[in-house]
Amino acid sequence: MAIDLATVDAWWRAANYLSVGQIYLLDDARLARLLTRDDIKPRLLGHWGTSPALNLVYAHLNRVLVERGTPTIYVCGPGHGGPAMVANTWLEGTYSELFPRVTLDAPGMARLFRQFSFPGGIPSHAAPETPGSINEGGELGYSLMHAYGAALDNPDLVVACVIGDGEAETGPLAASWRAHAFLSPVTDGAVLPILNLNGYKIANPTLLARIPEEELAAFFLGQGYAPIFVTGGFDGEDPMRVHERMADALDAAYDAIRDIQQAARSGGSDASSVSGSDASDASDSPDALDATIAPDETSDPRWPLIVLRTPKGWTGPKEVDSVPVEGTFRAHQVPLAGVRDNPAHLAQLEEWLRSYRADELFDADGRPIAELSALRPDGDLRMSASPHANGGVLRSPLDLPPIEAHAVEIPDDRWVEGESTRVLGRWLRDVMAEHPTSFRLFGPDEVASNRLDDVFDATPRVWAEQLVPGDVHLAREGRVTEALSEHLMQGLLEGYLLTGRHGLITSYEAFIHIVDSMFNQHAKWLQACDDIPWRASVSSLTYLLSSHVWRQDHNGFSHQDPGFLNIVVNKKAEVVRVYLPADANSLLVTMEHCFTTVDHVNVVVAGKQPQPQWLSLAEARAHGEAGLSIWHWAGSEDDPGLDPDVVLACAGDVPTLEAMAAAQLLRERVPGLRVRFVNVVDLMRLQDSKEHPHGLTHPEFDRIFTTNRPIVFAFHGYPSLIHQLTYRRTNHANLHVRGFKEEGTTTTPFDMVHLNDLDRYRLALDVLDRVPGLLEAPGIAAVADEWRAARADARAYAYEHGEDPAWITGWRFAR
Amino acid sequence: MAIDLATVDAWWRAANYLSVGQIYLLDDARLARLLTRDDIKPRLLGHWGTSPALNLVYAHLNRVLVERGTPTIYVCGPGHGGPAMVANTWLEGTYSELFPRVTLDAPGMARLFRQFSFPGGIPSHAAPETPGSINEGGELGYSLMHAYGAALDNPDLVVACVIGDGEAETGPLAASWRAHAFLSPVTDGAVLPILNLNGYKIANPTLLARIPEEELAAFFLGQGYAPIFVTGGFDGEDPMRVHERMADALDAAYDAIRDIQQAARSGGSDASSVSGSDASDASDSPDALDATIAPDETSDPRWPLIVLRTPKGWTGPKEVDSVPVEGTFRAHQVPLAGVRDNPAHLAQLEEWLRSYRADELFDADGRPIAELSALRPDGDLRMSASPHANGGVLRSPLDLPPIEAHAVEIPDDRWVEGESTRVLGRWLRDVMAEHPTSFRLFGPDEVASNRLDDVFDATPRVWAEQLVPGDVHLAREGRVTEALSEHLMQGLLEGYLLTGRHGLITSYEAFIHIVDSMFNQHAKWLQACDDIPWRASVSSLTYLLSSHVWRQDHNGFSHQDPGFLNIVVNKKAEVVRVYLPADANSLLVTMEHCFTTVDHVNVVVAGKQPQPQWLSLAEARAHGEAGLSIWHWAGSEDDPGLDPDVVLACAGDVPTLEAMAAAQLLRERVPGLRVRFVNVVDLMRLQDSKEHPHGLTHPEFDRIFTTNRPIVFAFHGYPSLIHQLTYRRTNHANLHVRGFKEEGTTTTPFDMVHLNDLDRYRLALDVLDRVPGLLEAPGIAAVADEWRAARADARAYAYEHGEDPAWITGWRFAR
Repeated sequence: MAIDLATVDAWWRAANYLSVGQIYLLDDARLARLLTRDDIKPRLLGHWGTSPALNLVYAHLNRVLVERGTPTIYVCGPGHGGPAMVANTWLEGTYSELFPRVTLDAPGMARLFRQFSFPGGIPSHAAPETPGSINEGGELGYSLMHAYGAALDNPDLVVACVIGDGEAETGPLAASWRAHAFLSPVTDGAVLPILNLNGYKIANPTLLARIPEEELAAFFLGQGYAPIFVTGGFDGEDPMRVHERMADALDAAYDAIRDIQQAARSGGSDASSVSGSDASDASDSPDALDATIAPDETSDPRWPLIVLRTPKGWTGPKEVDSVPVEGTFRAHQVPLAGVRDNPAHLAQLEEWLRSYRADELFDADGRPIAELSALRPDGDLRMSASPHANGGVLRSPLDLPPIEAHAVEIPDDRWVEGESTRVLGRWLRDVMAEHPTSFRLFGPDEVASNRLDDVFDATPRVWAEQLVPGDVHLAREGRVTEALSEHLMQGLLEGYLLTGRHGLITSYEAFIHIVDSMFNQHAKWLQACDDIPWRASVSSLTYLLSSHVWRQDHNGFSHQDPGFLNIVVNKKAEVVRVYLPADANSLLVTMEHCFTTVDHVNVVVAGKQPQPQWLSLAEARAHGEAGLSIWHWAGSEDDPGLDPDVVLACAGDVPTLEAMAAAQLLRERVPGLRVRFVNVVDLMRLQDSKEHPHGLTHPEFDRIFTTNRPIVFAFHGYPSLIHQLTYRRTNHANLHVRGFKEEGTTTTPFDMVHLNDLDRYRLALDVLDRVPGLLEAPGIAAVADEWRAARADARAYAYEHGEDPAWITGWRFAR
Repeated sequence: MAIDLATVDAWWRAANYLSVGQIYLLDDARLARLLTRDDIKPRLLGHWGTSPALNLVYAHLNRVLVERGTPTIYVCGPGHGGPAMVANTWLEGTYSELFPRVTLDAPGMARLFRQFSFPGGIPSHAAPETPGSINEGGELGYSLMHAYGAALDNPDLVVACVIGDGEAETGPLAASWRAHAFLSPVTDGAVLPILNLNGYKIANPTLLARIPEEELAAFFLGQGYAPIFVTGGFDGEDPMRVHERMADALDAAYDAIRDIQQAARSGGSDASSVSGSDASDASDSPDALDATIAPDETSDPRWPLIVLRTPKGWTGPKEVDSVPVEGTFRAHQVPLAGVRDNPAHLAQLEEWLRSYRADELFDADGRPIAELSALRPDGDLRMSASPHANGGVLRSPLDLPPIEAHAVEIPDDRWVEGESTRVLGRWLRDVMAEHPTSFRLFGPDEVASNRLDDVFDATPRVWAEQLVPGDVHLAREGRVTEALSEHLMQGLLEGYLLTGRHGLITSYEAFIHIVDSMFNQHAKWLQACDDIPWRASVSSLTYLLSSHVWRQDHNGFSHQDPGFLNIVVNKKAEVVRVYLPADANSLLVTMEHCFTTVDHVNVVVAGKQPQPQWLSLAEARAHGEAGLSIWHWAGSEDDPGLDPDVVLACAGDVPTLEAMAAAQLLRERVPGLRVRFVNVVDLMRLQDSKEHPHGLTHPEFDRIFTTNRPIVFAFHGYPSLIHQLTYRRTNHANLHVRGFKEEGTTTTPFDMVHLNDLDRYRLALDVLDRVPGLLEAPGIAAVADEWRAARADARAYAYEHGEDPAWITGWRFAR
């Protein structure tokens, strides 16, 4: 069905009218009468500048959808694009379906206008509240990565992504252009980037709008695209001319996408055989791929991209108070600021609104005229109603394989070593094999380094660029995505999760700070969704932070930072969870739990180095359930009827090892001392149950930590975080926390804990210092001297020999 | 003086030999005898892969420096480039000058080898410890922005910046390519980017190495460069051929830089007149620039850039255990891992080391042969000895203009409104006018929005791209830099500061989280410098965070986040400072102080909205000196001999306003109640003097906050931060903190504080709740009811009318 471009123009005018109405008006007005001061909002807070181009794209995409039926979602990158996106979703009817008070008639239009950027109303960006949105337009830079994440494993979907030229200056966006390197034209959908060059940010021109067009074309060729340029609307150009160009451009783009996909999919048996053969060949042999890659498979499809150059604030006031506005940075926010108090501005607003000829677009009851229905796709094909953009409705829970098959056997003497992340990797392999279209793993070139490489037995890394002989675990289709950009990895995963799928991101602990702000924004998104009944639950975003602060001794100070946890706990308790499993079985149990949760951010910190394993799977399950518990076998509380002399607590794998060794020192050298050994795997248990849903009540906390005995707490991160979580606890005054105190360098593993006073000797000495009277007991002062000497000796040995002494590395648990 | 390329090759071989030696050897060995197990470090921790290309660039740059005398510094982007950079600085003699124990002879070489990645030694990256470095190679992505920052206002300097193809995948690096848009060929120096495509990261190929070369060329054309390609070293190619190509490429690049600069500088009188006329014309008139911009000024210079494609780990083992290593990801770290226990590996290492023919490069005493001196530039011309790379030696303190001229007059009744950042902007204008080559302002398109636009009276924004009629405060040369990338702004400022200059970065508070990790790394850099005697002090990095959480009511939840302070306080107390000035005069005093400090990170949070001003300049100076103090005029302690009934404390401008209004409610409605009003401007005063150099001692703290009276604390950020800083204080159990609790939306300013229980009524009610017996006093329960009703009424009014009621917005301080 071919649609008349006049209808597209009518839709565009209607959306523009509704956008302006939202920014200015308290009621629907519709200009049956002259505007008065009382029609105008007291605070004018919206943003007009980006709206007309967003509306143009929406109207034209609707034409394509109606004509072609290609499922499409619309990712709105420009900040403050809210009025436009809301306007279109109202025209599509979706808004009224999801927010029944905002009916598709005059009273509904009045509510639509009033609620925008109004107390108790809706935000000024495309936000969780906006139907069809998977991208918040508040903090800029993430639209294109969200778009690519959404396209993965959705072979029939087109994700149209409008990118503002302001957003295009951000680092995360700049790192996203080549995300098609991780997209398969066979098994994934397509992304259609639409760069809107309206020329200006808040107060400045934009870079990409001020470089020669041939340079811009070269830039996109260099990013692997075939750019299509649409320029128009300047100097009063008739919009119909622009509609013609835009329609041609979108047709060409959709045709190109279809052609690329058909070509890849018809030749797809070859391509996937490469993937298959690589996937099934897990050996490191450099020649493994040699025979299976034909030269033609190294050529890339060149995806279409549209550069849409239109005036900022197009169709708005050309000038205000004799100063140019349309096509300048002055159109960014509210072009007519004095409307309530300046009659000339009010008249200009009225003229502006009338220019859209709303009386031709809405009937007497305020309903969009029938002609506009021709541009309204059916049901779920409406971009605002796409289930992909409310991914929870498409989500199926994971069918998790049993962790039992991979659990570490714990012998009777509890002495066995293992690499926690390697054990996890074997189970992850099974998870990925079970879910060949709905689970993905993302990491910044660290999947192998973090010892998760058994996943490559299930699936290789995806790579749409050149393949060469010698490539390992790399194929046209794969489900592990690695690029050296934490931003891109996180953004792809967010897009994947928000469209109803599952995944995991792994990173070095220190460098996850690179995406602090992305975490913040995603946590805010999830919190906001909690109040939006029609938003279905999505899978939690789970981080595995390995290569953590205590085992970056070889990489030095820049790689040592456990502060991400501090960022995380600032967010709403309903959303955030933090886990510090101390061994492989605890990690398995933790990850199994995380993968079943929805609407959370889970942060899991676990090391990759060989280290002692403590809990059987059954014990790990019970411990995980409890979140924190007393490990009786590790302490020395012989009489359960007595309070302990001291609580030795720990959270994190390395702190647990050091606390365990400290407990052993105390058992061996201070007989009769009643030490309670407590391990914390679910950090939020420490918080008050009134503050966090996982928190312990005060009586529960007091039962574990006592009300008056000294607590020595060995913590993975900054000590202040434990105080922050526990300052209201009964026994807080007796809590003494050791952790990272920003002492780091290139040294040995033991010297790292030594430098930060987290080592076994320091912990044991802390106990001696804190149990009243203990240091005065016979022989104890000498024990303390010995331990102090052992500390100093360990350092001297390491600085002499370049490695830790055998009495540290060879330590064995013994009861 | 022309240098023989055989000498360049000799230098390169020497640097390669020294790089391998550092990674493997405990002593100098120099192969006078066969290597034994005991020569080998017990832990092999270095990274070989990137080293040979870094050495190649170093050797060739030295040729250029000796021949041309062009001052140049070397920014080393690739991670783990430490062995290469250290090797070259030792060959230059600088290392021995700065670290006298590491002499330029055999014993020194032995120390050089042993210390690398060894306990008590040096890190594996180019780090603060590395002579000539202004960029840590740990967290990747910032090399090119550091390079551009270093080039600003150094018209004679070339900054050669090697970028790894791994680093090139990061967002921050991707956003840096076009930083020349903010560089003047007239008044700034040049950056020469050298992209080293060695093809691999830790375990993956790199994107830029796997795209067709014509696509790569298009990419750099699109970024405004004229790329020069140098490819070589593959398939056993003779390095001399590569030396020829590299020498030609560098000559071409230096020639191009000279030509661009000469052309711009000879025609420079025109160009600077544009800047001058714009700078002197502060009007908003769109036509101001029209007459002064000639069309030819809109064309850009096309800066040279070198793409150096060489094998990863070039000259290292071709194969190990029959698996290819050179030219693959396996060369990334330590190519021969089993050297201590595998005789074949040991023999292969020996063969590798001998391949450099060290006996031809070092004399019998281990000194570099005289021929190599020909490649050693003189004195400070050595890149490792450049004062620019140890910028503190070039730094002059700012000659700060008096703040008195801009201070807000405080009338007797203490009622006057002002916009703090606008007042600051006037003084900043003077600071920038006084320092036309050593102070710059950076912001992500928010300088005007943060109301600092008076600075444009002193200098426009810099913009090397097209200028068009209508541009405002934009010129070829300017000292305000704005792009919508917090990363780029921070990186440029870091580079500018580390090379001995001064500046300020301003940002919306929420979005400064985007550079959390850059802050972390810069703070770590400054901390490490504290232990390096030859590193001279550099100006502190100062953030002005405006558009803060409490005044982002119009922009919504995504713009509301005060958590950067939590990140900051995790770092070493020696480095970090946090200031929350409550009014304009306090902001002036704070900023004046920050600009005099060195080696710190200062974070200043201050709003831009009109708000009451409290302190005269003299009072603000005294308050700033004290860091926190009792504002007697704001409280109600009539008898100084008595302890107050309650302490009402505040930190931050909006919390101060609300606390002030609460104190007034209490004065008016609860006569006789002794309220102590405390304001905190220097947040770190709250910490123990043992924890932070600004901290108060316990007796000092107790004198202000009492030992037993309730404290109601209105805080700008997350309440837990105040608890984290004060949990050891005597009166902590009585401390009740209100702050941001992650409740936000698009609403009114008062509703924001209301939503988070930080509003005046809630604070006053908190006092009633906490002073023992007060609620039972006659009439007080009724007062509490009134206040609760007023809270609810305020919200109802806002939700009805879209703005706060006059009884809130019209509140006036009265005593």
